Amino acid sequence: MSTAPFFKLSKTDGKARLGLISTPRGEIRTPAFMPVGTAATVKAMLPGQVRETGADILLGNTYHLMLRPGAERVAALGGLHQFMNWDRPILTDSGGFQVMSLAKLRKLTEQGVRFKSHIDGSDWLLTPESSMEIQRLLGSDIVMAFDECTPFPADEGVARASMELSMRWAERSRSAFGTREGHFLFGIQQGSIYPDLRAQSADALREIGFDGYAIGGLAVGEGQELMFGVLDHAPDMLPEDRPRYLMGVGKPDDLVGAVARGVDMFDCVLPTRSGRNGQAFTRRGVINIKNARHADDPRPLDPDCACPACSHYSRAYLHHVFKAQEIISSMLMTWHNLHYYQELMSGMRSAIQNGEFAAFEHDFHALRAQGDLPSL
Amino acid sequence: MSTAPFFKLSKTDGKARLGLISTPRGEIRTPAFMPVGTAATVKAMLPGQVRETGADILLGNTYHLMLRPGAERVAALGGLHQFMNWDRPILTDSGGFQVMSLAKLRKLTEQGVRFKSHIDGSDWLLTPESSMEIQRLLGSDIVMAFDECTPFPADEGVARASMELSMRWAERSRSAFGTREGHFLFGIQQGSIYPDLRAQSADALREIGFDGYAIGGLAVGEGQELMFGVLDHAPDMLPEDRPRYLMGVGKPDDLVGAVARGVDMFDCVLPTRSGRNGQAFTRRGVINIKNARHADDPRPLDPDCACPACSHYSRAYLHHVFKAQEIISSMLMTWHNLHYYQELMSGMRSAIQNGEFAAFEHDFHALRAQGDLPSL
Repeated sequence: MSTAPFFKLSKTDGKARLGLISTPRGEIRTPAFMPVGTAATVKAMLPGQVRETGADILLGNTYHLMLRPGAERVAALGGLHQFMNWDRPILTDSGGFQVMSLAKLRKLTEQGVRFKSHIDGSDWLLTPESSMEIQRLLGSDIVMAFDECTPFPADEGVARASMELSMRWAERSRSAFGTREGHFLFGIQQGSIYPDLRAQSADALREIGFDGYAIGGLAVGEGQELMFGVLDHAPDMLPEDRPRYLMGVGKPDDLVGAVARGVDMFDCVLPTRSGRNGQAFTRRGVINIKNARHADDPRPLDPDCACPACSHYSRAYLHHVFKAQEIISSMLMTWHNLHYYQELMSGMRSAIQNGEFAAFEHDFHALRAQGDLPSL
Repeated sequence: MSTAPFFKLSKTDGKARLGLISTPRGEIRTPAFMPVGTAATVKAMLPGQVRETGADILLGNTYHLMLRPGAERVAALGGLHQFMNWDRPILTDSGGFQVMSLAKLRKLTEQGVRFKSHIDGSDWLLTPESSMEIQRLLGSDIVMAFDECTPFPADEGVARASMELSMRWAERSRSAFGTREGHFLFGIQQGSIYPDLRAQSADALREIGFDGYAIGGLAVGEGQELMFGVLDHAPDMLPEDRPRYLMGVGKPDDLVGAVARGVDMFDCVLPTRSGRNGQAFTRRGVINIKNARHADDPRPLDPDCACPACSHYSRAYLHHVFKAQEIISSMLMTWHNLHYYQELMSGMRSAIQNGEFAAFEHDFHALRAQGDLPSL
């Protein structure tokens, strides 16, 4: 095994950070975007294609995988990497967020969360200890502590109680995880929009000690302005020498604004889900391919994009296969979106390397302000 | 342009034929299986992947494409090859079969078929002349004459009248097609299960003169025994120096039996549609991946298959993603099935080349008789 540190911060430009995470399964260039592979597949993509877009790491959802196909089954089949044919790093969430948003008859106690499966109604209990065990069975490289994602809005009292519960769970997660060579545990900061709570949460996590630190409880309906308000101070509270992961974010301009505020890692279903719904992200903003104005347009989504959808297909074709509900529509639109997201991350990494992040941000917003290509 | 003849018959073994079709867009090794790309996409596959399975030619459906996105639109966008990113040969059917099976309020007259679109209810008229024009606009390499696929069962009088109508339409198709350098026209034999009618149809087509000859009106519910009964004589009635195409066939054992009877080309939705429905074709027969017995099985569908589904994924994974209704299920199962079909054709071509077709047939049936791998 390499003796490289888990995280190496190689350059900063303002608050924006260029770094490298090293794991036995491979390196992760930061700022990094992690495509979401909920049920052991990045929807509509083969793993080799996801890698071709530039992804260094995928995210898997503990809640979905524990229910189907089941963590013990995945372990018996050689772990999640072998199961889904992805040999690079995988980060798994703790299941805490999905259980509160998807499961039925949830009951949250100090112990954890009891719930019924949304698939077959079976009874489950998820705790810090069982979440660590499930993520171990899956073979996750980066394991997330079990927490409660504080709902938004929450008054300060509610947010404090929720954060303090998450910190007790963080300590239990740390104990249950123990030390596992080549596997890493991240704590999750909570505290909603309250700076004091964010600071207390960061202190609590730092005291416990984690390999990396996530910023939780954002992208839950508060809007970009409030989110950026939190990000103006929250990342600074976390250790400088550890990666910072903003969970569940986001739109392209969310990513740029968050990197500018010192965030290193992201995950979001937006590029994959929007692709299936006919929305393409481009440097000039969002294209809704179902719009009839594309029906006769021989041009690609973005003439300067090198993805397979833009290299080989017209907007007219993409419009046609979306309207005809052909699977290739999801395949090509998802590929384009993931390619765009990884190009965006790569562009930000280069800009930080060259000390040009402010200019990158300016150009990013200027091109989007121009909007889509003019109609033919 | 090459001076190679359109069809070169290079070897026979019994009635089985090894040949090569040459077009400006590429060669087609026969016996050939043509994957179906109904709406300008082989469902759940990228064109490069279809080519990787070994396909030399695709089939496009005139009925679907004329309704959506429209033949004029495809022509304005550079033709079907450019539209769908497939630069090798494309054969288009005439629309006659689909209009009778899918369209609403059909009215068949000597002129052609009036109908309403199943997509938006719009009024259409399809005739031998308009079918030729639509296939020209699509840019089809191999154009099919417009015919009526005689329903099954049909008494001899009905079958005769239907066949004679198709022969008049074949003549009108030939006239409307004219001569188009690098594009080829196939006539379609009808006559249901009646040898005399099949012979009369073959004579009529031969007199008109086509680049190739299809055997129509089979695989419409008559069953394999009756189909093979027709194929025991129908191919022999067609010119030896022209390719023979059995439309809409079939299951793997249909293909082997038809090649043994002198057929050169096939198309069928079975490998693609069955793949989406969770059925895998293998040398040992059909595997229904939704069956619970696969849930923990670490073995591939077929340990000797080199397709991506078999190279990288367990039956357990394929079972999981089918149950979870993930798009990758359709992608992998379709790829496997198309790969298997092309391997089957390749195996038959080698067997004919080596004069071992009878042994190939024997081994084909013997392995299927063994059934799927024993359970773990």
